[in-house]
Amino acid sequence: MLISELTTPALLVERDVLDANLATMSATLPGPRLRPHVKAHKTSALARRQAGHGHTGFTCATVRECEVMAATGLGADLLLANEVLDTRRLGALVADGARVTVAVDSAETVAAAAAGGVREVLVDVNVGQNRCGCAPENAGALARAARAAGLHVRGVMGYEGHLVLVPDAAERARRTGGAMELLLRAAADVGGDVISAGGTGTHLDNTWATEIQAGSYALMDTAYGALGHPFGQALSVLGTVISVAPDRAVADVGLKALGMDHGLPTIEGAHVRACSDEHTTFVPREPVHVGGRVRVLPAHVDPTVALHERMHLVDGDTVLETWPVDMRGW
Amino acid sequence: MLISELTTPALLVERDVLDANLATMSATLPGPRLRPHVKAHKTSALARRQAGHGHTGFTCATVRECEVMAATGLGADLLLANEVLDTRRLGALVADGARVTVAVDSAETVAAAAAGGVREVLVDVNVGQNRCGCAPENAGALARAARAAGLHVRGVMGYEGHLVLVPDAAERARRTGGAMELLLRAAADVGGDVISAGGTGTHLDNTWATEIQAGSYALMDTAYGALGHPFGQALSVLGTVISVAPDRAVADVGLKALGMDHGLPTIEGAHVRACSDEHTTFVPREPVHVGGRVRVLPAHVDPTVALHERMHLVDGDTVLETWPVDMRGW
Repeated sequence: MLISELTTPALLVERDVLDANLATMSATLPGPRLRPHVKAHKTSALARRQAGHGHTGFTCATVRECEVMAATGLGADLLLANEVLDTRRLGALVADGARVTVAVDSAETVAAAAAGGVREVLVDVNVGQNRCGCAPENAGALARAARAAGLHVRGVMGYEGHLVLVPDAAERARRTGGAMELLLRAAADVGGDVISAGGTGTHLDNTWATEIQAGSYALMDTAYGALGHPFGQALSVLGTVISVAPDRAVADVGLKALGMDHGLPTIEGAHVRACSDEHTTFVPREPVHVGGRVRVLPAHVDPTVALHERMHLVDGDTVLETWPVDMRGW
Repeated sequence: MLISELTTPALLVERDVLDANLATMSATLPGPRLRPHVKAHKTSALARRQAGHGHTGFTCATVRECEVMAATGLGADLLLANEVLDTRRLGALVADGARVTVAVDSAETVAAAAAGGVREVLVDVNVGQNRCGCAPENAGALARAARAAGLHVRGVMGYEGHLVLVPDAAERARRTGGAMELLLRAAADVGGDVISAGGTGTHLDNTWATEIQAGSYALMDTAYGALGHPFGQALSVLGTVISVAPDRAVADVGLKALGMDHGLPTIEGAHVRACSDEHTTFVPREPVHVGGRVRVLPAHVDPTVALHERMHLVDGDTVLETWPVDMRGW
């Protein structure tokens, strides 16, 4: 099948770029040094490809992601790196033989983990992102409370998400060190052998964590791409040019097919003027024609993928495989 | 069932607000004066409720929306208010007995409509939005080309989308008049009896079109809500508070559950600080507790709905019905 036969808008993943990204990352952070974050692609077929590069543990952001990963046979060591109050579905996965570790940062989330049948937790520590995570000085007490509730405390996690897009590499490395100093101090209070942190943006800087939770590196986006990481943009949204005027053209890729929180998408050889529900209006440098195809590069991959039912693995103009985006929803 | 039993994030639709919105609009624009746009909710059960208020024709933005509407038994008069190059699936709907009219603005889209088995078109005219639509002076020639290709030309459409959010009512009405002057001139050249235009923002101003394509009025959003229209905000995203710190709280409603192109969502009694993939971080004026529920109001309804599998019709804390968002995708 050729991409010209696809219904648009359609998510395309360039196989060579994807495989190079996976190989580069697994060479840098082999096996359990990387715990790939599936929220970035929500696609079990892609997770299987990551497992093929030697990674055995995975990071999830939602209960649904854990369920699909376990059903895919990739449930040997799942970390739900988020606080969850209704843990019954996670407990059911554990009862079915999956290993699921959940983040806790409060007495309530500890109680919820124990009540739902989850047996293992990481203490989530705020290392400066100021989102979830307990204060570092409270981590030890929370670990004791978790153990008192019958939970196995595997260690700590602390996501330096406020630093992953810091453009200057030296400043990013220095500040990552500061954040990890907080996490290591908490880890000493908590015990356990897991120190989970990091993302694509800090995967080279963060030499303190025992495992890095990177996800974006597989598909990449223009926001991360601008920072000079050794990963290529594998994902694009294929559109059809549906209207052309002297000063503009319109593709059938709109904001219902694109994550917009990082701003407008990019089209090579064109200036993108605006997006609406089903349209991207752009000014091409060379003429385009109605019925032509165009590749739109999203500014943020994660929410883009969440809008699509499937992604197509392609080699140039050839569709190699079609994968359901089967971890959408909650 | 109570909303406290729902898995979060969950789309909630307040029945009383929805029904008041539908009743207000159908009193203003009864029967065929309104052609409700289903792109705003993508939910056939909600379209059936609109049909219950007397509207028989519907506006769609995608082929998928047309397919689901026809399968729902609401295919008596569907307008695909967008240019389409691959019209085979639309032709199949027509062959199955649905009435499908598609927008054309070029020789290529005329040829595509004829080739795919679509029999009826509207000439789409650019009335100043500068997205799709032919130049007004070219509308007559395009209509002749469509008739020469064997298509029935029902009339014109021209969406004044650049005016629907103009805050000053007098300015909005004046500029809508200017845009419709262009459309009426094109209509005279094109012939036919349909002049389709408008949206929720101009539904009172646009007295020139024979039918108004409003969609947002049913559920509303904070962007439209700020303009003083007689519709209430029916849609919210229910979240669970998963983390609380002295200076903030975090709900499990992130940018994968919210359309972000109009900016951050709103939470009553709180300042919303940031959204990330699965989180909204906010500063509540009154203390909230971990495990509590919070309603997050999206800035833009349409792309919010497209991220959810289902919506729950509620009366306060009681879930009355659960509707699949069955028109997602393309």
